[in-house]
Amino acid sequence: MDTSALLHRPDSEYAYLYDDNKFNIRLRTKAGEAEKITLISGDNYAYKKDEWKENEQPLKLIAQTNIHDYWGIVASAPHNRLAYAFHITGKDGIEVLYSDRGAYPYEDRYMENINSFFRMPYFHDIDRVAIPNWARETIWYQIFPERFANGDKSNDPENVLEWGGKKHPSRDDFYGGDLQGVIDHLDYLVDLGINGIYFTPIFKAPSNHKYDTVDYFEVDPHFGDKQLFKNLVEEAHKRGIRVMLDAVFNHIGMSSYQWQDVLDKQEASEYIDWFHIDEFPIRSLEGLSADELENIGPLNYHTFAFTGHMPKLNTANPAVQKYLINIATYWVREFGIDAWRLDVANEVDHRFWKKFNRSVRKVNPDIYILGEIWHSSQSWLQGDEFHAVMNYAFTEQIEEFFTNKSSSAVKMVSGLNEQLMLYRRQTNEVMFNMLDSHDTPRLLTKANGNKQIAKAELTFMFAQTGSPCLFYGTEVGLEGYNDPDCRKCMIWDEEERDNDMYHFIKSLITFRKEHQDLLSFGETEWLDVREDERVIGFRKFYKGTEIYGYFNQGEETVSLKYHQEPVPIFRNLTSIKANEIRIKQYGFVLFTLGDEVKLDHDNYNYQEH
Amino acid sequence: MDTSALLHRPDSEYAYLYDDNKFNIRLRTKAGEAEKITLISGDNYAYKKDEWKENEQPLKLIAQTNIHDYWGIVASAPHNRLAYAFHITGKDGIEVLYSDRGAYPYEDRYMENINSFFRMPYFHDIDRVAIPNWARETIWYQIFPERFANGDKSNDPENVLEWGGKKHPSRDDFYGGDLQGVIDHLDYLVDLGINGIYFTPIFKAPSNHKYDTVDYFEVDPHFGDKQLFKNLVEEAHKRGIRVMLDAVFNHIGMSSYQWQDVLDKQEASEYIDWFHIDEFPIRSLEGLSADELENIGPLNYHTFAFTGHMPKLNTANPAVQKYLINIATYWVREFGIDAWRLDVANEVDHRFWKKFNRSVRKVNPDIYILGEIWHSSQSWLQGDEFHAVMNYAFTEQIEEFFTNKSSSAVKMVSGLNEQLMLYRRQTNEVMFNMLDSHDTPRLLTKANGNKQIAKAELTFMFAQTGSPCLFYGTEVGLEGYNDPDCRKCMIWDEEERDNDMYHFIKSLITFRKEHQDLLSFGETEWLDVREDERVIGFRKFYKGTEIYGYFNQGEETVSLKYHQEPVPIFRNLTSIKANEIRIKQYGFVLFTLGDEVKLDHDNYNYQEH
Repeated sequence: MDTSALLHRPDSEYAYLYDDNKFNIRLRTKAGEAEKITLISGDNYAYKKDEWKENEQPLKLIAQTNIHDYWGIVASAPHNRLAYAFHITGKDGIEVLYSDRGAYPYEDRYMENINSFFRMPYFHDIDRVAIPNWARETIWYQIFPERFANGDKSNDPENVLEWGGKKHPSRDDFYGGDLQGVIDHLDYLVDLGINGIYFTPIFKAPSNHKYDTVDYFEVDPHFGDKQLFKNLVEEAHKRGIRVMLDAVFNHIGMSSYQWQDVLDKQEASEYIDWFHIDEFPIRSLEGLSADELENIGPLNYHTFAFTGHMPKLNTANPAVQKYLINIATYWVREFGIDAWRLDVANEVDHRFWKKFNRSVRKVNPDIYILGEIWHSSQSWLQGDEFHAVMNYAFTEQIEEFFTNKSSSAVKMVSGLNEQLMLYRRQTNEVMFNMLDSHDTPRLLTKANGNKQIAKAELTFMFAQTGSPCLFYGTEVGLEGYNDPDCRKCMIWDEEERDNDMYHFIKSLITFRKEHQDLLSFGETEWLDVREDERVIGFRKFYKGTEIYGYFNQGEETVSLKYHQEPVPIFRNLTSIKANEIRIKQYGFVLFTLGDEVKLDHDNYNYQEH
Repeated sequence: MDTSALLHRPDSEYAYLYDDNKFNIRLRTKAGEAEKITLISGDNYAYKKDEWKENEQPLKLIAQTNIHDYWGIVASAPHNRLAYAFHITGKDGIEVLYSDRGAYPYEDRYMENINSFFRMPYFHDIDRVAIPNWARETIWYQIFPERFANGDKSNDPENVLEWGGKKHPSRDDFYGGDLQGVIDHLDYLVDLGINGIYFTPIFKAPSNHKYDTVDYFEVDPHFGDKQLFKNLVEEAHKRGIRVMLDAVFNHIGMSSYQWQDVLDKQEASEYIDWFHIDEFPIRSLEGLSADELENIGPLNYHTFAFTGHMPKLNTANPAVQKYLINIATYWVREFGIDAWRLDVANEVDHRFWKKFNRSVRKVNPDIYILGEIWHSSQSWLQGDEFHAVMNYAFTEQIEEFFTNKSSSAVKMVSGLNEQLMLYRRQTNEVMFNMLDSHDTPRLLTKANGNKQIAKAELTFMFAQTGSPCLFYGTEVGLEGYNDPDCRKCMIWDEEERDNDMYHFIKSLITFRKEHQDLLSFGETEWLDVREDERVIGFRKFYKGTEIYGYFNQGEETVSLKYHQEPVPIFRNLTSIKANEIRIKQYGFVLFTLGDEVKLDHDNYNYQEH
């Protein structure tokens, strides 16, 4: 029994409240090392060793990766406090006690000191990581306003180009998309099934992407005005669609009055502490092209990445905090937005985000706060900063199997489970899953234009824990390489758009909504995870309902036989005859079966309830 | 190369700022598994794989336990942001890349995606865990006011007993100790070398321990009044002594007006949301003895442990928060106290402590906040709640070797290192180390009255990272079993007190102060850690200074020979003749040597700089 891989961390994603009396406990072991694990537990003020040992409760295997097994149990406590330790029996028969002081032989002498046990000192509902319930049930749709729809030609930029006129847009292009265009197409989104819009920035800014904010209190005049945005939110809400705006608080645009003041007055500016300035003089970058600005390299002040037009804000400065938090609450209070997406959220300090969280939740306790973080994000997801992050690290596992083909089904499941084990169950439920965005190549392009792969990948993602997001245009077959190519104009011409894709995605959304509880709360059993054949099968189940899923990314047709006739729910390139399912290359099927199913596969799990 | 024990957690004690441009990185591996570890790192916006690989930086082994090796490196970054991964070469020659997505073979294809690297997104000084510098240099002295000194007979409780009259005090006893008694003996503490007093509660409460507060805004009348306390703080400060009070915010006394109101009005009381009440009616426990109250068992409201007179406060209630934080800031603002010790800190919610921290630091940014937590405490020590905890889990390792004799030197060092690796370096520097308190048997009693063991153990503790605390009376040989026996009256009679112990401790404090920087900041090299012989030797070093320490808890005299004559700094039961040190049973020596020392021992390390 190798104890060196054992991991449990009190008061973390390894030990947390799910609801106010369900205390979820996880334990990590080396893969295949433990035969059986039980929890020794009780009230720390009433320790009775022998009684506790008699009442040990078994943990179950909840998830597996290529190197670790994750075990779990849900505990409760009559007096809201728990002391606990793990009794681990290795496959070699060796018994181990794993407690707050480390790993010891499972012997009475190491159990004498109740202070050596792990502790959940008290179940505080106020410390429980809480999430807005609606976020679980949201199908997000990401809109890049400059490219979604031009609803009002009167506010077009001077240098506006013909809608969709360039095959490959460049960084400086403007096409005239605006908020009226979004309002005009809200019913289109309703038809598709969307119930949440994530807008990339809409505030006044010179670029087409608007990440270089000039005025956070104004809607960009090329997009409309505040009254129009108010109408948009109202119209969206009427249709059951939530609205999320993009808060770019890591940096500001070089055309902002604050930065202009620094350029103007240099050391004498009252705004020098708003930024991170290494030395003076600061030079103006007026007149450079978007391409030049994006890649200017190190300057004598800190910026977003190595761009020149986005000087980094000093969020430790109370004046900056006040300014930004004022903005954050303003749009929630005055316009009723439902969520904030936080740009480059990882590069802004935690203290600021905690203050941000307290402030916006005071205005709307049900707000959803989403951070843009591409890497593991535990420290932002402790309940007092964000509810979720843009789940690139999770969906990347899917992409590596379906489109990059750089990983096997075994590796994908290992990677998915590893990501799920980084966060609490409730956090996973509202994670923001997407296969592309304005910051990546488009899904269909990553799939080399293979629509069947894109369909399979989308369906697989929709069947996972977390809320899915579609990047505008995916539903009509929009393609595009990395930024700026992924930001092409939306296709509105019904002749030009891919109507098959549209109907496919509409059905996929319907599927997700019809099985919302199962997909949000369900456990996943990975039934058939093949190393070489590029085939994966799973079962999701929740409160007596279940769905089977099978995806074939291999060349050969996959045949599956069951004891009774499978009932298909959603499928592609798949036929069912009597008790046999046949899935062609790139095909998939989601289906149900009657009782008494026996499958002889058993593999990776994610079952934490 | 077994990768299952690898552990690194971004934005935690494994990855943190020490000062604003020193980013400390730790990595855990299975003991003895890795031959060499290097860091691949750079600016995430300027990834150049080959250049990064060429510039890999070596980690060093900083600490070892019986199952793990801990490696460390201090990194910096010109643009305040870092992407990094570990290149691990196993003793078996296998090379591994360990990054944010897990462990992979050290191959180029796993290094293509910069998003797979670990990230320190930006070095924010505001997020750095900061500690009050003075706390590092403090020698604490814990006073239980009812038993320290009776300076004013006029405020004695009615039922006061003769000072030290009972050999074994019981729970209901009162002896008349008070604040005037402390003021009278401040010069005594100065003579001893003390520069910080930790007072157990002084607020109005019926018990002798005062953990059942009736009025947090009043000094207990048997102790004095607020003016007297103000004088005490002023007199202490004049003498360079800091003052720490005990905040009992987990619960309140049953005699408080809030609880009395509940008893009186039951469901109709405006205070029912101040507590955790399961059902009505709530009965009064008036008239029960202290013993009965302490062990009453489950009631229909939540209490501290299973006591009856200490109903638990609902710190999630904004009215309670306001009330308690008002108290916390009042004593800092009006009386100038330097620190708060937080009773049963682990059972109060995190949200409350964060608010507490923000509020008291607003009044005194240099305040020291100490939580009473006996188990691992990472989640309270992230910089926005406490600076340190009462380090029972650390000093328990020392106790198990010196007094319990339940562990070997090897196990002790393993346990000490494991505890050190739970926290950031700056946190360890101000941890509150003590070998006994009002909640444990006394040191000398735990040592079965063996003063030589007690001396060795104290000296060993004083030589460790963290600020030491003495429980009143240790310096005069006070003994005592668990509460209430450990709360005996202080011995003031010079005939009765152990003057040898007094002078020993005075010298020990002098030693600590004279080597403050080395003991606070120094690295520890465990030179000679024996499994069977109960002998331990170490070297501490810092900026060209070093001290050797040797402790012999075995029966045989230990002889050590060096190339030159050792210069003793502090010793007991030890003789030095020419180049030989002879340490008798229970003896120890702290000494220096000249240059060119060659020792052939090498063992566990704690070297993180």
